[in-house]
Amino acid sequence: MQDIKILQIGLGPLGIKIANFIKERRGLTTVAAVDKNPDLAGKDLGIICGGEASGILIQSELNQAVAKEKPDIAVLTTVSDMQRITPQIEEIVALGIPIVSTCEELCYPWDAAPSLAKRIDEAAKQNKVAVVGTGVNPGFLMDALPTFLTAVCQDVTSVQVNRYQDAQFRRLPFQQKIGAGLTPTEFEQKKQDGSLRHVGLTESMQFIAHRMGWKLTKTEDIIEPILAEADLQTKDLSIQKGQARGVRQVGNGYVGEDIKVHLVFQATVGEPQSYDEIIIRGNPDIISRIPGGVNGDVATCAIVLNAIPQVLRAQSGLQTMADIPLVSFFS
Amino acid sequence: MQDIKILQIGLGPLGIKIANFIKERRGLTTVAAVDKNPDLAGKDLGIICGGEASGILIQSELNQAVAKEKPDIAVLTTVSDMQRITPQIEEIVALGIPIVSTCEELCYPWDAAPSLAKRIDEAAKQNKVAVVGTGVNPGFLMDALPTFLTAVCQDVTSVQVNRYQDAQFRRLPFQQKIGAGLTPTEFEQKKQDGSLRHVGLTESMQFIAHRMGWKLTKTEDIIEPILAEADLQTKDLSIQKGQARGVRQVGNGYVGEDIKVHLVFQATVGEPQSYDEIIIRGNPDIISRIPGGVNGDVATCAIVLNAIPQVLRAQSGLQTMADIPLVSFFS
Repeated sequence: MQDIKILQIGLGPLGIKIANFIKERRGLTTVAAVDKNPDLAGKDLGIICGGEASGILIQSELNQAVAKEKPDIAVLTTVSDMQRITPQIEEIVALGIPIVSTCEELCYPWDAAPSLAKRIDEAAKQNKVAVVGTGVNPGFLMDALPTFLTAVCQDVTSVQVNRYQDAQFRRLPFQQKIGAGLTPTEFEQKKQDGSLRHVGLTESMQFIAHRMGWKLTKTEDIIEPILAEADLQTKDLSIQKGQARGVRQVGNGYVGEDIKVHLVFQATVGEPQSYDEIIIRGNPDIISRIPGGVNGDVATCAIVLNAIPQVLRAQSGLQTMADIPLVSFFS
Repeated sequence: MQDIKILQIGLGPLGIKIANFIKERRGLTTVAAVDKNPDLAGKDLGIICGGEASGILIQSELNQAVAKEKPDIAVLTTVSDMQRITPQIEEIVALGIPIVSTCEELCYPWDAAPSLAKRIDEAAKQNKVAVVGTGVNPGFLMDALPTFLTAVCQDVTSVQVNRYQDAQFRRLPFQQKIGAGLTPTEFEQKKQDGSLRHVGLTESMQFIAHRMGWKLTKTEDIIEPILAEADLQTKDLSIQKGQARGVRQVGNGYVGEDIKVHLVFQATVGEPQSYDEIIIRGNPDIISRIPGGVNGDVATCAIVLNAIPQVLRAQSGLQTMADIPLVSFFS
């Protein structure tokens, strides 16, 4: 079978990691690359990825990138929000190219951004291609996976997901991303400017609620620091008592007074255990636990690639992980 | 929205339980029922299910059952094997009725019964309906769920599933089904006549292997007794030292010398722990555990009903749980 030809759009750290993952995979080949960053224009993708020259030069414009050969699918790793991704998607699907994207808000935009979702859906249908947003979270651990686990339930009254991560041995950028080492005031500032927020918690709640048939009357997305009770030291970072050692983000999806969806993401330096846990209350209760948790860096890149065959099989339009056939590793 | 109209075919214990589950569910209604058992002919489904008269009389013939009104889907709970289910399916799809079935071998028949699978696929396509086999096992715990968990893997080298159940507090028929209380000789006889076998282990292995891109060169399906090391007593059953207290069934799927898929189903009186565990080796490893395990009685009935909306959305033909959109509870 011929390789699936991939157009990569967005060559930031995530796009580069995906490019390297594609190289490892049988059945997938990157044939073109686009990034608006002028520093990358004309550079060889292979070199940018830390390897040998590939002959694929990064283009600034989509039209240039696809001039020679039409790709089978675009992997879009540019932005996290619907506002900015929508025109990008419209430009790509207009060329008849389906899309899988890591855009967090695209994973389930029907409630949070209905008019943009509709715009994408119509553009995709008009061009007879599917558009899917996915990732490990949102896209899997806190929405698609708990939703699939309810398949064995005759009734479901609530869904809870706990994702706890010990950042002790993670890279410095991850520790900084979760606010480790910030004073409470600095943490609050970063919370206000949005740079601490895990994007997609509300979308994950709406994904689950939609499938369970619950009309959420209110959603909450609460961010707070977890403060160090003693001085802490990692390889790269000193955290003093009273500074943040990480973040706790809680999503609550209500129907009336009842919390029907409860999502907890807590990542700190010195978290006693890393794990992903799903607690479904219903008939029967289902509790599922992944000890150690799922490493987000590998998983997000992997699930985007694993989704490709199913996006190509999917009906046209804006689809979610709940709409396309079961995504899995393939080779 | 109007209820989905269900034709139930097969009113044994499983069919009756499903009928009662349908009554509990919003959005689903049984409109007709068929069973070849002459003792059931003309009986009211509601009465047979232990409730009030429903006005739905069990018919011996499919044509009689659908004469008044065409159902949206058939729930087929008659037999476990492809040989006998195939003509039943052909008769149903000829009327333009899609099917979801608990037939174990139907969950993934493409390798074990390719010519029958092809017959069903062609009949379904010709009549523009989908046919899906599902259940908790096969259909979910040992195939679809581990397959979905590989979605976050960049590489997978093997898949193992352990399903351990303590039968101490289960009903007597379940304890008997797993051979508890049999002498080794009696166990061997029942093993030979096939009545101890959990049907579908090979199909689950082939389901997983197909998606992972592994061509299995050999499969094993090994059944052995677990013998009591001391006298045991349950509410309904006395087991003497040296008698079987349950069964261990192991499926091995090989590629050359390597076991790529390893499925263990062990159900005994006095099993220390009940749990369902998935161990995926690859990048990354994923270990997932459901403490307490999933109760098969509730789960099989539930997943059949939960699959219905996705079977109705699916492309026509013989489909598997890997082909249709994500199955989940709905209301």
